[in-house]
Amino acid sequence: MSRTEQQVGAAPAAPGRFITVEGAEGSGKSTNIDFLRQLLEARGIVVHTTREPGGTPLAEEVRALLLAPRKDEPVDVLAETLLMFAARAQHLATSIRPALAAGRWVLCDRFTDSTFAYQGGGRGVAPSLLQQLAEAVHGDCWPHRTFYLDAPFAVGSRRLAGRERDRFEQEDAAFFDRVRAVFRERAARLPRIVEIDATRPLAAVQHDLRLAVDELLAPAAP
Amino acid sequence: MSRTEQQVGAAPAAPGRFITVEGAEGSGKSTNIDFLRQLLEARGIVVHTTREPGGTPLAEEVRALLLAPRKDEPVDVLAETLLMFAARAQHLATSIRPALAAGRWVLCDRFTDSTFAYQGGGRGVAPSLLQQLAEAVHGDCWPHRTFYLDAPFAVGSRRLAGRERDRFEQEDAAFFDRVRAVFRERAARLPRIVEIDATRPLAAVQHDLRLAVDELLAPAAP
Repeated sequence: MSRTEQQVGAAPAAPGRFITVEGAEGSGKSTNIDFLRQLLEARGIVVHTTREPGGTPLAEEVRALLLAPRKDEPVDVLAETLLMFAARAQHLATSIRPALAAGRWVLCDRFTDSTFAYQGGGRGVAPSLLQQLAEAVHGDCWPHRTFYLDAPFAVGSRRLAGRERDRFEQEDAAFFDRVRAVFRERAARLPRIVEIDATRPLAAVQHDLRLAVDELLAPAAP
Repeated sequence: MSRTEQQVGAAPAAPGRFITVEGAEGSGKSTNIDFLRQLLEARGIVVHTTREPGGTPLAEEVRALLLAPRKDEPVDVLAETLLMFAARAQHLATSIRPALAAGRWVLCDRFTDSTFAYQGGGRGVAPSLLQQLAEAVHGDCWPHRTFYLDAPFAVGSRRLAGRERDRFEQEDAAFFDRVRAVFRERAARLPRIVEIDATRPLAAVQHDLRLAVDELLAPAAP
């Protein structure tokens, strides 16, 4: 869909695009999601910014269950995985799909790539099960474009210093190395994922994001 | 496993048996679970009584999310289904499986049969998806025996009169007719499920439960 079609505002609206931003903690997701939102809005696009797990009242309640550190009860990896997909099903049904159908662009902090990275890579859940769940929950509603902000554990961890850490952020370097390996493997394999080196200064990261957005908005060649 | 083996108390213990009680609201589940627990304990069996959704701190938090009436946000049926299985995965990992492995009998108020009845029959989720999720979450850890307390909607509804109703109890007669049809179809098809007419006086219901427990405890024929 070109920018021009977006601006026509005809009813029924052309469906919006689904953009996700992925990366480990401390990779600069929040700052760059804000940058992307402003970039798209400056081009006249109505953006629905949201996040996973969460994005609806019920899904945010599931997020709170997932992120809370639990000293007295180890969280089963399959329970964790199913809670992620439960929140996702709710988010898709009541927020993402309606926004896309109304012609808004959805800009989402994390989506199923994170589940492959954290529950698959980090926790060892079989990718085939994650794929089955993804098919059941979102079918072909995969993001049109995913920006993966890559940074090794040491960089992200340094940026988080002094912040109170959630149940995932409390994991060790080996966990985040496995998470990163899955993100990078997916970025190398899936054309929709643009990997961006997030260890560079912010200006360089945002230069790359701007180019990628320009490419996304360029009309298809005649 | 015979009662005698249970009482030997050798280490490692012979695994316990997994018993579930199913039925619609107002079918007398709570009263009869209490009766079954006393019956088993009187025979020297160590019983772990629990319930679904719930049974662990995290799973009980998921239960609270599932049962709360939500006026402002329709709950997606797939999200509901995945929350049920997420709670179940946690319950199995941290409560049911450890209890069975330690030789205790587990007596559980609802399990996957309820998911087939409520999310399958009531909400229309495909049984094939429920079967896939059941296989992923509990594999062959199905109950050894299930007591299904059968009562039509009118009876259960009358017994609930005056009580505050949760999100499921607020459903209409047609919903509970579909739920009941699935319970009865499963009871007719699956030998582990014993259907008991719960519209009769409690003494008659408990007479049947006592016979079924005696049969469960009888040593296998030589």
